[in-house]
Amino acid sequence: MAQHSLQIAVLGVSGRMGRALLTAIDEAPGTKLGGALASANSRWLGKDASDAGGGPQRNVTVEADPAAALRNAQVAIDFTLPEATAANLAACVASHCPIVIGTTGHSEAVRAQIAAAAHSIPIVMAPNMSLGVNLLLKLVELAASKLDADYDIEVFEAHHRNKKDAPSGTALALGAAAADGRDVKLADAAEYSRHGNTGARQRGSIGFSVFRGGDVVGDHTVTFAGIGERIELTHRASDRLAFARGAVKAAQWLVGKSPGLYSMQDVLGL
Amino acid sequence: MAQHSLQIAVLGVSGRMGRALLTAIDEAPGTKLGGALASANSRWLGKDASDAGGGPQRNVTVEADPAAALRNAQVAIDFTLPEATAANLAACVASHCPIVIGTTGHSEAVRAQIAAAAHSIPIVMAPNMSLGVNLLLKLVELAASKLDADYDIEVFEAHHRNKKDAPSGTALALGAAAADGRDVKLADAAEYSRHGNTGARQRGSIGFSVFRGGDVVGDHTVTFAGIGERIELTHRASDRLAFARGAVKAAQWLVGKSPGLYSMQDVLGL
Amino acid sequence: MAQHSLQIAVLGVSGRMGRALLTAIDEAPGTKLGGALASANSRWLGKDASDAGGGPQRNVTVEADPAAALRNAQVAIDFTLPEATAANLAACVASHCPIVIGTTGHSEAVRAQIAAAAHSIPIVMAPNMSLGVNLLLKLVELAASKLDADYDIEVFEAHHRNKKDAPSGTALALGAAAADGRDVKLADAAEYSRHGNTGARQRGSIGFSVFRGGDVVGDHTVTFAGIGERIELTHRASDRLAFARGAVKAAQWLVGKSPGLYSMQDVLGL
Amino acid sequence: MAQHSLQIAVLGVSGRMGRALLTAIDEAPGTKLGGALASANSRWLGKDASDAGGGPQRNVTVEADPAAALRNAQVAIDFTLPEATAANLAACVASHCPIVIGTTGHSEAVRAQIAAAAHSIPIVMAPNMSLGVNLLLKLVELAASKLDADYDIEVFEAHHRNKKDAPSGTALALGAAAADGRDVKLADAAEYSRHGNTGARQRGSIGFSVFRGGDVVGDHTVTFAGIGERIELTHRASDRLAFARGAVKAAQWLVGKSPGLYSMQDVLGL
Repeated sequence: MAQHSLQIAVLGVSGRMGRALLTAIDEAPGTKLGGALASANSRWLGKDASDAGGGPQRNVTVEADPAAALRNAQVAIDFTLPEATAANLAACVASHCPIVIGTTGHSEAVRAQIAAAAHSIPIVMAPNMSLGVNLLLKLVELAASKLDADYDIEVFEAHHRNKKDAPSGTALALGAAAADGRDVKLADAAEYSRHGNTGARQRGSIGFSVFRGGDVVGDHTVTFAGIGERIELTHRASDRLAFARGAVKAAQWLVGKSPGLYSMQDVLGL
Repeated sequence: MAQHSLQIAVLGVSGRMGRALLTAIDEAPGTKLGGALASANSRWLGKDASDAGGGPQRNVTVEADPAAALRNAQVAIDFTLPEATAANLAACVASHCPIVIGTTGHSEAVRAQIAAAAHSIPIVMAPNMSLGVNLLLKLVELAASKLDADYDIEVFEAHHRNKKDAPSGTALALGAAAADGRDVKLADAAEYSRHGNTGARQRGSIGFSVFRGGDVVGDHTVTFAGIGERIELTHRASDRLAFARGAVKAAQWLVGKSPGLYSMQDVLGL
Repeated sequence: MAQHSLQIAVLGVSGRMGRALLTAIDEAPGTKLGGALASANSRWLGKDASDAGGGPQRNVTVEADPAAALRNAQVAIDFTLPEATAANLAACVASHCPIVIGTTGHSEAVRAQIAAAAHSIPIVMAPNMSLGVNLLLKLVELAASKLDADYDIEVFEAHHRNKKDAPSGTALALGAAAADGRDVKLADAAEYSRHGNTGARQRGSIGFSVFRGGDVVGDHTVTFAGIGERIELTHRASDRLAFARGAVKAAQWLVGKSPGLYSMQDVLGL
Repeated sequence: MAQHSLQIAVLGVSGRMGRALLTAIDEAPGTKLGGALASANSRWLGKDASDAGGGPQRNVTVEADPAAALRNAQVAIDFTLPEATAANLAACVASHCPIVIGTTGHSEAVRAQIAAAAHSIPIVMAPNMSLGVNLLLKLVELAASKLDADYDIEVFEAHHRNKKDAPSGTALALGAAAADGRDVKLADAAEYSRHGNTGARQRGSIGFSVFRGGDVVGDHTVTFAGIGERIELTHRASDRLAFARGAVKAAQWLVGKSPGLYSMQDVLGL
């Protein structure tokens, strides 16, 4: 029955991830929107969450106060700004509400606050919420631990034309997972660019190559290239729904857990 | 020092895999050719193995008698014909020589013989000797066990224009690994072709698609397609050297093992 | 200056393509929304187009009457239902307004009406409005005309789990383009499924393989597989914006053209 | 009848391309080996070509003198060393024998010699003999001429671990073809590496990315990435047979042509 649905508060309902989260909640059986937060100057305050994030009328009002947004929620998902996390977290602690934090770029101070909050409530935090990327990290580490340096490791990533740094954080995380599997440090093995007279590839190195163009949400491929064979492990994100669905899965998993700081690897049971 | 190299007998030296095995042995540090067998009517009998299989002069004569081919070998690799395995195996048992069997298509009788021989010598046997494919089987099983039926599983394979059956044995093995991971039976989940009015995809099914063309040695991709993301796990074989190198790795691993029947999963430590 | 912008009427503003068209118009320099039509029972009638299709306030009211929707427009784009095209077309003819028709599935009668209307106004009609797919059709035809039957042709397509027919219309169009290039008929060359004992590939055939899963918008690859090499020509649609942008380009191209029925190949100058 | 077969002299029969050329000639209907040349210090001189290059006995003796190698040939294919081309060319001119030159890295002096020779005999010369790559160059140019700078162009290439320069010559040729299609200069548009704080992609640029690993013979992909869609044009070489077959096609095409210097584009009729 509907009244038994897991009620999820979306903190940051009017942003792009907010819209994706509403869709993900609509799609996940046994969940419904239980609260909605926007920033204090949002034009959506006081309106229905569907006005801010799309979809059917939900009878959930967009609030500016985290405590109000959490009132009917059993769990919260935070995709706001790094500066907003502290207040949201405090409200969660006050109301014993578990929280999934997808916001990134926190200061040291906020990180310490998150660690402290994890003593009283369960928290999932991850730089990339997609199940697929988190699984890929595991597969890459496993493959790297089983294939020796006869297999050259290369990380390729593609992102949209407006991305300003290279390689992507996820590509670096994949490289680090490969380095872990091989028991070396990425900093010692990484080869970030190739142009001109490069000489032959150095045995044991981990190479990166970068594509920029169009509106690519994010593709990543880790290749293990041996003699006569290649293994390619690829993730393609086509929609931020992938991140939203991962966050909703994390929220469902989190309810009832002991206080602590969990990762998406924990959610996936990897 | 060269005299401490592992001496490997190649049974089936004049075939396509024999040529690849000689190359793989030349490339693997610490190994050398220690014997060579061809069929009784081969034109290469009595000549140097390099005449039959290419590469530098090796001072190893091509023999028709397995016992003679094994005389200086510490381990044997068999890529002959299913009918030849029995005699080769008997010679290995007689000389306590471990053997890697890459030949496929054995009769029930020969299979029983192999199982019996495994009580006195260590044997590696696998339908596909490539490290990559064997690793991929493991990765697919792991991924399938972690991603629920929100992720549709599809197996794609590409082979050369002369392949006569579809899907390939390796594609079916990949499908079975996915089914294992998901704790279902491939026979219940497999969807082998789509043409016309198929209706929507059935939840939980494992689909197959097949490419035939050119001289493609063998490509396989298992995709897990969710909402907003895809994971693609691919193996590309470009040369039967991949199989030869896997066999040489298996041979190196096998020396000193207890009698028994091992798989490539054992060799890889998966 | 803004008052010189090309004013485009969007017929079908409240549908999924309508939303994409508003975005595409916002993005295309020198264009603006000049009219909006929804069906007679739409809840958006009388509201601003941005309420129906998203984005900034536009001061364009959603109309139920095509004549009203065309009043300020220099060109129209129709993504409605096949049954609605006739009335929209009649209004365009009456107001001498060029029209881009992206709606598909018309009856014979409506097709005849379109052909007749093309005597008085310029019309672009195409089953797939994306520039990329239309360019790919040309590239495939060219490649097929230059590579003989030593190169096996295979068409692969991937779509979301809810697609009910296979192969896709676009895959069939690609196969037809390949057949054209080779001067054969697709019906004679097509090989639609492979399962079991297929025997070797038939020389000159055009094979199809089909992937279904997740929310894939649409991927298509035509491969020419020879000995020692493969050419793969791929289109990946990640967003229906690709179709919307193609339609807007067609609208821009269409203004000032002589009456007639044009294709996207004409728009692209192929 | 066999005596009417086109007799092809292979100049450089004992090299890796020589072996591939013998295979390609065996496979091409209506052609046979008509002469074989190796360097003056080759151990194969005086032996049958099949000893040097593999395959069935051919009753063609490996010669050190180009004139002798050309004696029974109607056309020659040269895959030797840049220093050897001059003497081979002179012999071809003397015997009015058309020649296909796949050797690369010629000095200015030899290039002039080739241009001069083209006044008396027909010559095909190309840095990459594969039909596929030459066709791809054309497709890329065409696509670039039809898609404006809303489509970002990226060139990706993958080669084996021992390749010492980046990007590959073929990748640069593909970039130049794209630049031609867009009527810009590659030197002005090329972006060869991305690492760190790159900023957003520059509109109109042509990006390169490079993979090195394993024994990859050569993969090249040119992508046109727009909003909501991508076109990927890929060539995969898996075997130098692709280059050998292209050379044999060129040889067949060349016989009977007027003196002149032809490209593979001419052979393909592009």
